[in-house]
Amino acid sequence: MKIAVIGGTASGPAAAAEAVRTNPSAEVVLFEEGDHISVGACEIPYFVAGRLEGEQDLQVLTAEAFERTRGATVQLRHRVHAIQPAQKRLVVEALRFGSRHEIPFDRFILATGARAHRLGVEGEEAAGVFTVRTYPDALAIKRWLDTEPVRHVVIVGGGFVGLEMAEATRDRGLRTTLLEPEGRVLPASLSKPLSAPLEHAVWEAGVRVRAERVTRIEADSAGRVRAVRTDRGEIIGCGAVLVCIGVTPRSDLAASAGIRCHPSGAVAVDDEMRTSARTVWACGDVVAVPRIIDGVPVHWPLAPVGRRTARVAARNASGARPPDRFTGITGAIAVRAFGVEAARVGLTLDEANAAGFDALAADVQYWSRTRVYPGSRPLWARLVVERRGGRILGGELVGSEGAALRADVLVPLVAAGATAKTLAEDLDLVYNPPVAPALDVLKVASAQALRHMSGEPGKRSVRPRRGR
Amino acid sequence: MKIAVIGGTASGPAAAAEAVRTNPSAEVVLFEEGDHISVGACEIPYFVAGRLEGEQDLQVLTAEAFERTRGATVQLRHRVHAIQPAQKRLVVEALRFGSRHEIPFDRFILATGARAHRLGVEGEEAAGVFTVRTYPDALAIKRWLDTEPVRHVVIVGGGFVGLEMAEATRDRGLRTTLLEPEGRVLPASLSKPLSAPLEHAVWEAGVRVRAERVTRIEADSAGRVRAVRTDRGEIIGCGAVLVCIGVTPRSDLAASAGIRCHPSGAVAVDDEMRTSARTVWACGDVVAVPRIIDGVPVHWPLAPVGRRTARVAARNASGARPPDRFTGITGAIAVRAFGVEAARVGLTLDEANAAGFDALAADVQYWSRTRVYPGSRPLWARLVVERRGGRILGGELVGSEGAALRADVLVPLVAAGATAKTLAEDLDLVYNPPVAPALDVLKVASAQALRHMSGEPGKRSVRPRRGR
Repeated sequence: MKIAVIGGTASGPAAAAEAVRTNPSAEVVLFEEGDHISVGACEIPYFVAGRLEGEQDLQVLTAEAFERTRGATVQLRHRVHAIQPAQKRLVVEALRFGSRHEIPFDRFILATGARAHRLGVEGEEAAGVFTVRTYPDALAIKRWLDTEPVRHVVIVGGGFVGLEMAEATRDRGLRTTLLEPEGRVLPASLSKPLSAPLEHAVWEAGVRVRAERVTRIEADSAGRVRAVRTDRGEIIGCGAVLVCIGVTPRSDLAASAGIRCHPSGAVAVDDEMRTSARTVWACGDVVAVPRIIDGVPVHWPLAPVGRRTARVAARNASGARPPDRFTGITGAIAVRAFGVEAARVGLTLDEANAAGFDALAADVQYWSRTRVYPGSRPLWARLVVERRGGRILGGELVGSEGAALRADVLVPLVAAGATAKTLAEDLDLVYNPPVAPALDVLKVASAQALRHMSGEPGKRSVRPRRGR
Repeated sequence: MKIAVIGGTASGPAAAAEAVRTNPSAEVVLFEEGDHISVGACEIPYFVAGRLEGEQDLQVLTAEAFERTRGATVQLRHRVHAIQPAQKRLVVEALRFGSRHEIPFDRFILATGARAHRLGVEGEEAAGVFTVRTYPDALAIKRWLDTEPVRHVVIVGGGFVGLEMAEATRDRGLRTTLLEPEGRVLPASLSKPLSAPLEHAVWEAGVRVRAERVTRIEADSAGRVRAVRTDRGEIIGCGAVLVCIGVTPRSDLAASAGIRCHPSGAVAVDDEMRTSARTVWACGDVVAVPRIIDGVPVHWPLAPVGRRTARVAARNASGARPPDRFTGITGAIAVRAFGVEAARVGLTLDEANAAGFDALAADVQYWSRTRVYPGSRPLWARLVVERRGGRILGGELVGSEGAALRADVLVPLVAAGATAKTLAEDLDLVYNPPVAPALDVLKVASAQALRHMSGEPGKRSVRPRRGR
């Protein structure tokens, strides 16, 4: 059995390795148009900030090591122009030679990932304007900041990547302005009450968040960016622009092959990660994955999900019996920036209501450790639950410590359809003054949700009370 | 309805407050023989270390504030001598006056807690020998260390409290020797591979752990402790001895009332927290609670569990319909001492095998954050699973950061009977280089467990590999 894996960034290598593990007699070939495989996009901000030792820290494995240890063949600098499932072949261009080849394969695993959105404004091609997605992006940004006389960076987009890049440029001592139409960071993931403490940290770190959109980028005579113009008519002078406004699935190959895609552009797959073409599976940032809560397919381009879809696709493509099935995502995501952790799991209140749930949100502020223990820090939590029944649909956590890992505690609860009552009353979480209070913030939030469900007034901000 | 709650340390006040909430027309009286209610035992080590502001930090609520805000009556310095369910009354001594009274009640909630084990050796009554359990214990230890010329402290027992007290005495600059027959800390909770990193931190902090038992305590002519003698014939000179060898349920009142107790001494209750006497419920450290994994009743005297049993007992005693039910414990416990967090959930391998499970343990070492991120620290994990089916029975985590909260992630998994495959393959945990690696140590451990289950060789210590 010959299996082609198309795309070498992260889920492709994971899939190729898993295919060999599942079916050691299969011949697995991994095609990558760039110079590297197995590179980490999530580490780019820390690389740009200079916190990593060097660009080698962005690479998990070299192609040579991958071939040696994983047993799959790697074809670097090979661009796949077409998948032809009916003819059982790929059309591949060897970029070094410009030559095209038709190579026969029995099965295909599509792992072409996603590409960064561009702004689509005049002047975007100026030197010093970057997206933040690929290994070459990382090298280019760092080189630009290392060598050009940049003093002010404009970051476009206040999502996770924008926030991380803002921290990176502040780490480098650069003046940093973040443009986000909603005027706050992580607007799609955090509700306003939860993003407020993060806003504060961002502001304290000297990053200005402006509720503006870029309408044009201006360059100097040498073609180097010198300013952005915004929809408020402002001109913001800057030496670099980092465009962090999300990604879109690279599904062109799939679409050309007649494979069904969602309106989002993400490749449609079943729970075996098989596409509408029977010999083509897909994984990673190019596919849509079902939300575990309601089965709605979403584009959720995160590494932990890509790793999971890669495994399922590879096992099934290489003949695993019984087939492996993808169970859906809870949508866990976290960031630590400017000394604050922020995390979310599941649905936000808006998402839950949009999905047809009758949902409510319980917001509390409590403490990361026992309140009287030195170093205990405020911790904010929101729990989103179904008004009737109290099923936990999602949660948000923000605080200077202990927020991200507490989001992980919600993951199995959301995945299992557990209720606020279970969390509030049936689970014994750890308690030790230096690590967690007797009543964990997750329990405080779920108790608040129970109060809301029963129509009792909630406690706006719950703190341990003192009787003096 | 008149409800008597006996015992005011922690679960008693929780039960009294919940009884009033459940049935505002009930008359609820809380009896406490000491001078305070609502005191925290878990904070004692930090109080002794001087990390808290003062003794008021050991009190959650004064009796006055409790009465005002919770709506129950508090009788301080009242000792209950007998519960007489058939006669519907308590025999109570008002300690200030030495007078005994028979007071009628309809229902009783027993929250008498647990008392610290004594060594039972000659000389134990010497001044400077303390158990570590109560509010008076806390004050006495601190006063002793504040006022006596103590330079060396012997701590007897290497469990959680012994470990925390060793940190407290080291914090005070005192030479500290810990006597634990097994020669290592947390022997009942951590397997040897997992306790090793903690041992190392204890040793580095200058605490000597000796595998010895105390056979006698020696005092000077003024009755002050001056040494302990051990079963190896050693004499260890010291100015204080802290006895931290566990607790035993204070079930004398229950036993005298003819209420059924377990051989451990813990009061037997059903899932409504009702005892064998129909009008008596019990909660907190005096009861046995079922392990959620196999329903075996165990004595598990921890605050988060006491809070849960108090709620169930109080709701049912005050007439909640339908009755509230206690679902069992996962046995989550954590500590941070000497810069290391250690935590366990569920069953250890020994406990699992003793309970009749065919269990295996998967041990791994991974990282607290992405390995290349500055500050990422080693993190050790053990997962105990059923060999067939892979149900997660328990886990241990040790590391200088991120161990305790990751134990909380295991709690809902253990409670739900989830499998290693679910953890390894079906859950997307958060990933962000400063907070958690792409593959969380819990996933690494569960993947290792899957390998063991399928008979593949495990990876002894799993680290990200580099292809250079």
